[in-house]
Amino acid sequence: MTYQLTALYHHPEDVDAFDRYYDGTHVPLASTLPGLRSYTVSRPDPDADGKQAPYRLVAVLTWDSAEAFHAAVSSAEGQATLADLANFAGAGVDMCTGTSDAVV
Amino acid sequence: MTYQLTALYHHPEDVDAFDRYYDGTHVPLASTLPGLRSYTVSRPDPDADGKQAPYRLVAVLTWDSAEAFHAAVSSAEGQATLADLANFAGAGVDMCTGTSDAVV
Repeated sequence: MTYQLTALYHHPEDVDAFDRYYDGTHVPLASTLPGLRSYTVSRPDPDADGKQAPYRLVAVLTWDSAEAFHAAVSSAEGQATLADLANFAGAGVDMCTGTSDAVV
Repeated sequence: MTYQLTALYHHPEDVDAFDRYYDGTHVPLASTLPGLRSYTVSRPDPDADGKQAPYRLVAVLTWDSAEAFHAAVSSAEGQATLADLANFAGAGVDMCTGTSDAVV
């Protein structure tokens, strides 16, 4: 069992600027979050009909427990990471946080 | 680098029935997908204000490559897993599929 944050970024107006900022600035910042165990970034493909995916980017971050996650968010690094969203995620980001179980 | 399917299930009308079916029937079925490397299930918490999460359930499944993912979807197990969505995911499911990179 781990605690998982799934961050779902809506399609931005300027995809290149979003991707550059995300990789160059937000990832290094979010990577400093205390207790972070894993962090994956996926940019979904269009579907078989060429329709764009529901989101531009899916980030999955995990911690060992809910307590570790909440401590990370409350830390100076967490506050800086959250504040950074205003710099590139104007199109919106849906956040899902909860325990996660490996079934395979 | 892996290939990731993120399945985002909207809040169902009957949460208990949804959860029971997902855990008891859909997980065992999806677990048979050929080449599946990992499969995690998270049920997001309400936020600090008690507002419900954007989705009822977040499933993250990974394969070694896009080719392995597409082969899984095309297989008999994949077709049965997709067909099973009609049995419990009437509220809707958003699917995101694409390569995934571990940054931490």
